[in-house]
Amino acid sequence: MINDDLALRDLSEIADAIAAGRITSLQATEACLARIAVWQPRTNAFLRLNKEKALEQARVLDKELAAGKRRGPLHGVPMAHKDMYYRAGEISTGGSAIRRNWVAPVTSTVLQKLDAAGVVELGFLNMAEFAAGPTGHNVHHGHCRNPWDDKRVTGGSSSGSGASVAARMVYGALGSDTGGSIRLPASACGVVGMKATYGRVSRAGAVPRSWTLDHVGPLTRTVRDNARMLAVVAGHDLDDSTTSEKPVPDYEALLEGGVRGLRIGFALPEALVPIDAQIGAAMQAAADALGKLGATIVPATMPDFTDLYRSAEVIVKCEAASMHRPWMEADAPYANQVRTRTDAGYFIPATQYIDALRLRAHFVREFLAQAMDGVDAVLLPAIPFPVPTLEETDVEASGGPATLKMVARFTGLTRPFNTLGLPALSVPCGFDSNGAPIGLQLIGRPFDEALLYRIGHAYQGATDHHRKVPT
Amino acid sequence: MINDDLALRDLSEIADAIAAGRITSLQATEACLARIAVWQPRTNAFLRLNKEKALEQARVLDKELAAGKRRGPLHGVPMAHKDMYYRAGEISTGGSAIRRNWVAPVTSTVLQKLDAAGVVELGFLNMAEFAAGPTGHNVHHGHCRNPWDDKRVTGGSSSGSGASVAARMVYGALGSDTGGSIRLPASACGVVGMKATYGRVSRAGAVPRSWTLDHVGPLTRTVRDNARMLAVVAGHDLDDSTTSEKPVPDYEALLEGGVRGLRIGFALPEALVPIDAQIGAAMQAAADALGKLGATIVPATMPDFTDLYRSAEVIVKCEAASMHRPWMEADAPYANQVRTRTDAGYFIPATQYIDALRLRAHFVREFLAQAMDGVDAVLLPAIPFPVPTLEETDVEASGGPATLKMVARFTGLTRPFNTLGLPALSVPCGFDSNGAPIGLQLIGRPFDEALLYRIGHAYQGATDHHRKVPT
Repeated sequence: MINDDLALRDLSEIADAIAAGRITSLQATEACLARIAVWQPRTNAFLRLNKEKALEQARVLDKELAAGKRRGPLHGVPMAHKDMYYRAGEISTGGSAIRRNWVAPVTSTVLQKLDAAGVVELGFLNMAEFAAGPTGHNVHHGHCRNPWDDKRVTGGSSSGSGASVAARMVYGALGSDTGGSIRLPASACGVVGMKATYGRVSRAGAVPRSWTLDHVGPLTRTVRDNARMLAVVAGHDLDDSTTSEKPVPDYEALLEGGVRGLRIGFALPEALVPIDAQIGAAMQAAADALGKLGATIVPATMPDFTDLYRSAEVIVKCEAASMHRPWMEADAPYANQVRTRTDAGYFIPATQYIDALRLRAHFVREFLAQAMDGVDAVLLPAIPFPVPTLEETDVEASGGPATLKMVARFTGLTRPFNTLGLPALSVPCGFDSNGAPIGLQLIGRPFDEALLYRIGHAYQGATDHHRKVPT
Repeated sequence: MINDDLALRDLSEIADAIAAGRITSLQATEACLARIAVWQPRTNAFLRLNKEKALEQARVLDKELAAGKRRGPLHGVPMAHKDMYYRAGEISTGGSAIRRNWVAPVTSTVLQKLDAAGVVELGFLNMAEFAAGPTGHNVHHGHCRNPWDDKRVTGGSSSGSGASVAARMVYGALGSDTGGSIRLPASACGVVGMKATYGRVSRAGAVPRSWTLDHVGPLTRTVRDNARMLAVVAGHDLDDSTTSEKPVPDYEALLEGGVRGLRIGFALPEALVPIDAQIGAAMQAAADALGKLGATIVPATMPDFTDLYRSAEVIVKCEAASMHRPWMEADAPYANQVRTRTDAGYFIPATQYIDALRLRAHFVREFLAQAMDGVDAVLLPAIPFPVPTLEETDVEASGGPATLKMVARFTGLTRPFNTLGLPALSVPCGFDSNGAPIGLQLIGRPFDEALLYRIGHAYQGATDHHRKVPT
């Protein structure tokens, strides 16, 4: 295999090939670096590339393997992560200007887990400032650009995670999702993104946006890759009291069950957001494909998400305002769109915030009883319109209302599942008339990640959208 | 034994005597009813007495035992509980006028657990309106009066729980504690009260005051009784997501370890609240007694609780305001002191509430590192002054500032441990010059209830304050 071939392989293939001694971690790392040399100028996916350090890590991991020591299921696999996962002694910008030179005092739990599994760290990735923004715009570090069309957005806030995985610069990347920030870039860049159940993955040592709604999760090229990576990062953590003590299943071992006998609720909830005809057609095609594989597709009735969406707005504004207070009071250099959205949080009464938190249990009961009544999972779009351009969605000069409107358009079908805390998987399901990717979203019951992966894996076995590579 | 003798026995003695067939549950229940006939008019501890139902329960439990079935460690023991633990189909007032005739739709987890352990339920007990108030005043249902002196307060908000256990009307009673509401009546009535670690006992099916600070726990005559009762009600509960999955120790089996080798920090924190000389002397005597038993008594340095106390004020006001909003907006009939304290919650910004919540982790670290550095437990007063009269502490006509001042005087040494979530045990340690009880407080590390019980049990083995009965 030549190096570029290696970079085009999936995470799990590469991990298994390294384990079997067919290739080395150094070869895989060099292959990624070769891709980065070409694609970084086109996408601006990386904020910091640690080339020498990554090569050295790869050499160490190769030596370990030669000595019979395989650290874990990701031994030797090069990755990079959204620049909000702390590594002690290294800069962690959170996509901001404020923390441009800030050095993290601790290493995040998820990076510790990836280290223990043998991952090579190529660097840290672009993101929306403090994870606030659904497009991938970043006025401080430069916008991240979609590998399928560099005039178009990547989706955000995990912009670099979506772009780097899609452009085959890395085999997998961590993102985070407070209102769609894993699923939007997964959808817009044509990769797989998992926002697992609230409490499944530790957030310790990651910059919070809104701890009630924040979820950490992987972006990868295939469902299998994602299952492997989630199994590594998931689990209980004493440093994040919201993490569940439920055991983490071996998701990859559970992939092959197929969809025969499953009931999947299908929703194009036009009453919630306008859904573009191209997106609707791609969703219908995905539902048909799952039907052909043996699943029973039934219409799903979505509840009215208006109050749920407003609750999320209140929660995120209040928590972000509390967290950013010292910087906001010091008039620190935020982008307008981030400052505007945060400012609003200072004017919300505590009772309104508490009421929003208290409504969550009601909303969960309602969704499970209504949309998930008699079905195993719900299928709906991730982004209800074709991937727009950076220019079309640039609200930096437009102020609050335009920002809110743009955010609401992007996150109308993703944010509800942050408030509900339910697992949500985004899987590529086609391309729009501009050649940009379309993503479907699968929603499950609490801690039903394995079932969502099983459906997504069956779908990827019957389709090849995820096999296409941007050129 | 004549009936009154039976009522004077401890919970664990009675439970064991019933189990051994030496007495019947019916005899124990009749003994309690005989005490109630004398003491209810003097204390107003009961809001509702279910005499016939209790007698019938006792007969059923006696038959079960005769047939070889012992439900659990409290089989046949008569109790009553603060009127805020729901029993499906029965009235639950929460001490309010608003819910004077409200019928609970569910049974609280703790009552289900007591049922499963074989408890006879004599009725429901007086309490401060919606658990708000440290004295036991109640303008809707009549004030609860201290069995040691009916002009004096019982402490609150679990007023009836303190009074009924002290007057030997019941063997044990559930209270709840948001700022001291178990420990204040335990101290003022001369009984044992445990506010266990946050998350140790389920609050499902209990009226919330402030769910971040609410704790459920038992009031009993002895530490042994308390250990037995806590072991029954503690544990993980799917209906209260804040409950811990940690196994519940057999507290009673761990009572006898003694205090030799333990280090106990002793504090009379005059910098936090003025401490009456009589109270200080009783605490010093308790410390000396523990020292004689083999414990090493060292001075404990308490942190400045000013910010901690203010955080608790913010949290309780915001959560209570959210919970009471429909009634407050409907101008429902609250006592002035409850309405005044709740009203303030509507004017607090969400960021202030969130900041208060976020400070808790810092305060816990600070307390463990400073006050608990090198010691196993901390000893301090529960109430820093002799038990006052109902008249002296009646703020109903005085408005907000007088109420806040009175609350702060009572709860200065108890409320911090609600915010910290640490276990806190109140044990009788003497009587003031008016003949009213004095209580000590023992604070432990998270989930160290067994250690606090061990210290309290050793202390009760060497002293007889808990053996005195009001006449």
